[in-house]
Amino acid sequence: MKLYDLSLSGNCYKVRLFAALAGIPLDIVAVDFLAGEHKRPPLIDLNPWGEIPILEDGEVVLRDSQAILVYLARRYAGETWLPGDATGMATVMQWLSTSANEIQNGPGAARLVDKFGYQLDKADTLRRSARILPLIDAHLSRHAWLALERPTIADCAVFPYVALAPEGGVSLSDFPHIRQWIERIKALPGFVPMPGI
Amino acid sequence: MKLYDLSLSGNCYKVRLFAALAGIPLDIVAVDFLAGEHKRPPLIDLNPWGEIPILEDGEVVLRDSQAILVYLARRYAGETWLPGDATGMATVMQWLSTSANEIQNGPGAARLVDKFGYQLDKADTLRRSARILPLIDAHLSRHAWLALERPTIADCAVFPYVALAPEGGVSLSDFPHIRQWIERIKALPGFVPMPGI
Repeated sequence: MKLYDLSLSGNCYKVRLFAALAGIPLDIVAVDFLAGEHKRPPLIDLNPWGEIPILEDGEVVLRDSQAILVYLARRYAGETWLPGDATGMATVMQWLSTSANEIQNGPGAARLVDKFGYQLDKADTLRRSARILPLIDAHLSRHAWLALERPTIADCAVFPYVALAPEGGVSLSDFPHIRQWIERIKALPGFVPMPGI
Repeated sequence: MKLYDLSLSGNCYKVRLFAALAGIPLDIVAVDFLAGEHKRPPLIDLNPWGEIPILEDGEVVLRDSQAILVYLARRYAGETWLPGDATGMATVMQWLSTSANEIQNGPGAARLVDKFGYQLDKADTLRRSARILPLIDAHLSRHAWLALERPTIADCAVFPYVALAPEGGVSLSDFPHIRQWIERIKALPGFVPMPGI
């Protein structure tokens, strides 16, 4: 099973992190991102969005880091990380949307500006960060994990760009519950880091 | 089962549309959005995000329109609209992320500016729309539906803000396959409209 990967991408790291925690072997294929390898064939044929990560598992080809987490959890990790019942699945799903929208466009995008020079509206990324991080901190003041009172793919999806927020000039100093949650994740058996974490 | 709802919200409409197509009864609770009812107790206690829709089904309370679709599909609609196998589920999930991010922040946000006077960066919403709509049109040139060659919650999630795009000054005239897909959705048994569609 191949993961088309970039070591500095938080979206790719979501997948590597979950695979490590759940003991799922991946063949990591490094993509030459600066050369635009993901924008040309053959990768653009695997993902017309022109983005990584891409997962290739036999005939199955998936884009979107959240969808890849769902696939790996359901196919290779039983009920632990993403339960099959409606309530449990939807509870996790709430956080996958938060990851795809508020986190990606908040701290994730702030980091793209500061670390990689993307031409995005930095003030907008800071506004979005200032809205979502207090909500997550308040949630984590009452819960050890984002969903279901145990580690799930919700944590794997939200963790990377929250933990990397300082690389985008977004401080976590006002969010003690987020900082404690980050330490809990780092202490999970099998945890793997990435540059900046 | 209560849906806290706003008739003009495409996110609320996603849920009403899917419930209608799948024959799931909902008690619609109209929220006084202009008066900020969703920002105050009791609704802010149901969803600290301060957003609607909110679904309340006995003890289950869910925010996020994508998560609500997952819940309703898994609990009340069998395998048809969201299959339980890893590949099928992840294939649909790709489009739920697209809905939460690219569609929400593209044509969805453009409409918030033009129709409701939100102070957002209109040029950014148009750039995001101009990126995602051609990708969707190209996909629909090869497929009748977004995922699994049949109607799924992927279509329900993406449809509202794509069909409402002209209300944000985003024309669909260059996207014939999207326009045909809109007509296919409108022809589904049980389809319900919303203002602007």
